[in-house]
Formats: sequence, C-alpha cells, structure tokens
Amino acid sequence: MGDRRERALEVARQAGCEGVLAAHPSSVAWLTGFEAEIETGPSPFALGPLAVLRENGPPVLVVSEDDAGDAAALGCEVSSYAGFGLGPVAPVAGASRALSEAVGSLRVATEPGSLPAALASELDWVDAEAGLAQARAVKDADEVELLRAAIALCDAGQRAARTEARPGRTELELWGLVRGAIESEAAGRTPVLADLVSGPRTAEIGGPPGVRALSEGELVLCDLVPRHGGYWGDSCATVAVGEPQPAAREGHRRAREALERGVEAVRPGLRAGELDALVRDGLDYPHHSGHGLGTAWHEEPRIVPGSETVLEAGMVLALEPGFYGDSLGVRVEQVVLVTADGCEVLSSHEIEL
Amino acid sequence: MGDRRERALEVARQAGCEGVLAAHPSSVAWLTGFEAEIETGPSPFALGPLAVLRENGPPVLVVSEDDAGDAAALGCEVSSYAGFGLGPVAPVAGASRALSEAVGSLRVATEPGSLPAALASELDWVDAEAGLAQARAVKDADEVELLRAAIALCDAGQRAARTEARPGRTELELWGLVRGAIESEAAGRTPVLADLVSGPRTAEIGGPPGVRALSEGELVLCDLVPRHGGYWGDSCATVAVGEPQPAAREGHRRAREALERGVEAVRPGLRAGELDALVRDGLDYPHHSGHGLGTAWHEEPRIVPGSETVLEAGMVLALEPGFYGDSLGVRVEQVVLVTADGCEVLSSHEIEL
Repeated sequence: MGDRRERALEVARQAGCEGVLAAHPSSVAWLTGFEAEIETGPSPFALGPLAVLRENGPPVLVVSEDDAGDAAALGCEVSSYAGFGLGPVAPVAGASRALSEAVGSLRVATEPGSLPAALASELDWVDAEAGLAQARAVKDADEVELLRAAIALCDAGQRAARTEARPGRTELELWGLVRGAIESEAAGRTPVLADLVSGPRTAEIGGPPGVRALSEGELVLCDLVPRHGGYWGDSCATVAVGEPQPAAREGHRRAREALERGVEAVRPGLRAGELDALVRDGLDYPHHSGHGLGTAWHEEPRIVPGSETVLEAGMVLALEPGFYGDSLGVRVEQVVLVTADGCEVLSSHEIEL
Repeated sequence: MGDRRERALEVARQAGCEGVLAAHPSSVAWLTGFEAEIETGPSPFALGPLAVLRENGPPVLVVSEDDAGDAAALGCEVSSYAGFGLGPVAPVAGASRALSEAVGSLRVATEPGSLPAALASELDWVDAEAGLAQARAVKDADEVELLRAAIALCDAGQRAARTEARPGRTELELWGLVRGAIESEAAGRTPVLADLVSGPRTAEIGGPPGVRALSEGELVLCDLVPRHGGYWGDSCATVAVGEPQPAAREGHRRAREALERGVEAVRPGLRAGELDALVRDGLDYPHHSGHGLGTAWHEEPRIVPGSETVLEAGMVLALEPGFYGDSLGVRVEQVVLVTADGCEVLSSHEIEL
C-alpha cells in the first residue's frame, strides 16, 4: 500500500486524532482499494462504504454483507451489517452499529461532507476533509500502476472514437461504440464520465452525447474519464470527420502546442499557477489547465490561475488546454506523472486532428 | 405535483416539524423533479442536491450554480453555491451557507442517513427517514406518467435483448446493444442497473454482463432498470438463444405462472406478505417477490414474506418471481399500478421464452 496509509495517519495526528475515518468513496478507495458501486446512485440496502484506519493493523471496512467478501479479499478487516435480503431494510441502523464496533472510543479525523449525520452523532470526530484531500495528491507506485490501467481504457476509447466517427452516425451511436470499446478492454461494466459533442456543439466546451448526427468536415470532441480498479483515467482528443476546416487546424495547432508547453514544463518545484499560466498563454479557455487524477476524477493539484501549490514527484496531472471559437472547439488532454526531473506522459492516444 | 408535497409535510407535522429537508436524492427527485447526476459518483464540485419544503410556496433546491438553471426550470426556488470554476473548491462550506439560508430557523424533518454531518450541526432536525420513505409509496398521477416513460425504455431494451441475443456474441457485446437501444429511445445517456447473464450464469440469479459468449440453446436473463426523468423503470425477461432445453421451458412456465398469479391477485387491501406467498407458491427463489418502484429502484412496498404492509391504489409494484435450478435460471418481471379494483400492467415487453 506504499506510504499513503502513513500519510493519512499523519493527517490524523495533526488533527489531534488517533485514527482516520474515511467517508468519501474516493478516500475509502485510496486507503483500501475498495471500489464502491456508483453508477446507479445510493443503494437502498447499504450506505456508502467507510474505512477506519488506526496505528498498526489493516483498515477496517464498514460495508454491508453483500460487499464483505470483496472487502476481505483486499486484505482489510470487515465490520458488516445486513444488506440485500428478505428482512427489514435498515442500512442506517446497521451501518451505525458496525461503525461503532469498528471505531470504538477512537478519536477520528474524518470527512463530514460525506459522513452521514446519522453516523456522526455517536462519534468523537474532527474535520480533516482538506488534509486528506491534500494527502491523496502524491501517488504511491501501486497507484501509478492502477492509473496506467485506467488510462489504457481511455486509449481504447479514443481509438474507437477516431475509427468510428463517420458522417451520418449520431453522437449517441458513436458513444455506444466508444463505451463498448472501453468495457470490452476492461472486461466488464465501467463508469465513464464523458464529453462527446460534435460540430457546433464543440464550441460549447463539452456535454453529453445527444441525437445530433455527424457531418463531413466537422469536429468531434471526445473527453473520456473511465474508472477502473478504483482509479480514474482521463484523456481528450478532437478528431475531424473527413477533411477539417482551416480554422479547426489552426485551433488544434494552438491547443496542441499549449499541451506540449505544459508537458515540457512539468517538474517538481513548479507552482501549479505557473504551470497554468504557461499552458494558458495566448489561449482564453474558461476552465482549468489541468487537475490531479486518482481515486477522484478531479483532485489536487488543480492547475488554475494563481495556485501556489508546488508540484511534487509522484503527483499525476491531466493537462487539457482548449481552443474554443464561435462555431468550433478543440481540446487535447494527456495525463503525466511528475518524476524527479520532469514528467512521464502516461497517455498513449493519438492527439492529431 | 399532486399530493406528495402535502404527504411529506404531514410526515413533518407528525415529527413535530414545520418543514421537510429532503437529503436522499430519491426524495429530492420525488418532491422537486430534480434528477441528480449519479453515474460517476460524488462530484468534486458539489454535494448532493437538497430540497427544503415548508407550508406554502415551492420547495427550495440547494444545489451548486452548475445546476441552478435546471432547478429553476422545475419551478423551484434555488439557493446555490459556487460549483465548477477556477476558484477554490469548497462545496461543503458553500452548501452549508446555502442550506442555512434556505432553512433559516425552521425545524425540519430530514433523512440523516443521507444528510452530511457537516450540514447537520447547525440545523434543528428530526429523523423522518422512515416516514418519508413510506410517503413515497403511493404515486401521484404525474409520477405514474413518468414511470410509464421509464418503463418504455425497459421495453426498448428488452426488444434489443431478444433480437440481438445470438450465438458467439458476448454478454458485454449484447449489453452494449441493449444499452444503446435504451439510450437511443431516451435520446441521451441513461443510468441503468442491470443483470445480464447467460448459460449457467443464469442459475446465479443475476450479475453484470461479462466476457462470456452465448451459445445455441442457452438462456439469457436480462433485468433492466433504467432511470428517466428521475424515475426508474424495471423489467426482466429470460430469452432462449435458438431452441431452449425442456428444463428451461418448464422453469419458464412456472415463473410465468407465478407472475400471472401475482398480477391476477394485486388489489387494494391485499397485504404484501399475502401477495408474496401467492406468487412464491411452489417456487423457492431466494429473493423478494417484488418491490415498489419510483424515484428509487427498490422501495416500499416490499413484497416479502410476512410483510403486513397493505396495498393501496396508486402504489406501483415490480413483480419478479424466478425459477433457479442447478445449471439454469429464469426470471420474469412486470410492473403493475394498483388501481381501485385490481391493477394495470405498465410493462409491454415480451415475456415468452
């Protein structure tokens, strides 16, 4: 598990606590590897997973019995409560009891933006939301491997988008093929956050696929963010259906050069705000220049104007400058790992128009 | 909005409160029509939506600025906080302030299994989780229309499953076609809970689609639960790839007859436990015989052994008996609306093998 459990415990110590109670699913995944089901919203039979970490010993996952096997397979201790079944459905009472058993009298550093109020009242807790989010920014070696696997799914999706973007096909039809390629590569269902827009919709920066049909000479902007093994990949490419217009070529050139400037500049010691300024230079996109990537699809360090956050080796950044005009938009995005003296590009998808 | 806001306020009065604070996304959708994004988990930029309902006046939706337009379009008042942007990300502080403005000094009946602890500490609240869940069981007329639309997506998915289940195709490939049919019918991305299993996997009752390829003579069990307009559809069919085995025909006949017994029996005044016994008679599936359906994919009334819940007109039930043997399983499911003197079947998909 690398150093991250130790980093989390250090956050707890700084907060005057003896342990960590992770309540945000991204933090639970980070400390345990447990991948919460998310695609269909909260379960009627269970609350979100919780993880209790104390000095020495494995974390304790607090989950319903339906997830107890998966939790144990991760090397965690498990404190469980009744899940799907024929009896009364009472996940709040069950989780409350199971959490109480896992925490005991420990004072815990937790995430009260995610911890349900029903579970908080009996606990001795301190708000450590910001500290835990910061501690997630530098990745352990095994996390980088998980990110590589998630990014490989992006690569598969981008290949499909490039191959299958054809006149007459709707955005939704293309999306089905892209998602199919991702799920085939993953060998299973996969949550995917995505922008998939075509033609004039590309000027709107992003959006979900709709019923619009692609035409010759148009652009398709495809930003794919799949989760695999608890970690999110992220990549964007903009592809032309047939022969692109000169304005598209020019916008693409500028966005690609901005991305290249960013990749060239990334190194430990650089401030996130400096990196943002370098990438943004000469472009006026309304969004961040990039963001951290891990068990959340947008996390520290955020590459935004004025940020004083200093890049460190082991951080993983998605850089995504864009050029948006009146009737077309272009964005390109790669993920990089900050190394001792620069960065390694983890993305392998084609960036060309 | 029919009577449901009045029913929610009555729950609040019974709890000694002057208003309702809906914190579970299913309750927020129920009271406001607001459909929270769920497919990619919690947003880094916002907490889940909240809704405050008091005597007289529209509900107040507490959402990030990214959702303020959608919220206002529903006829709700909006109390919003900063969302996606270049500034610091602080949804907990933002939501806390926006909620405080929406609630004022009102004593609220809420759902502490969903309400974040960070938002609860400043409020005067009472736990009304169970009462609100019960109040959702009887549907207003406009809710029934929304359920019909969601069930039409199930029908489209089931048509695709039946047409496209062919030897050599993997479960995941079939799933892609089924989901594509649903999203095409919905004209947009659609969360879908699903079982899609083939061959001996059907004996395992359910599970997500995998890399297994279908073969001639096998069964495919397809249970589809898409969300549309905030409401979940639900249907199950089991189809044969080519000519089914006699054991499959026999299992299917028994499951279908159980479903027919249920549809025949449903009427106001029947207890859920009696309905369960009627449907389950002669079969030994390990799950419920059915469940309520609405803004959650499993809600009251649960059709389980011993339940004393009395069916009422306006309740919407999914009935889903199954027959599971050593090497094959069958399940069939239809959704019914309880009427004054019986029920109306809302599902239109083919049930035959």
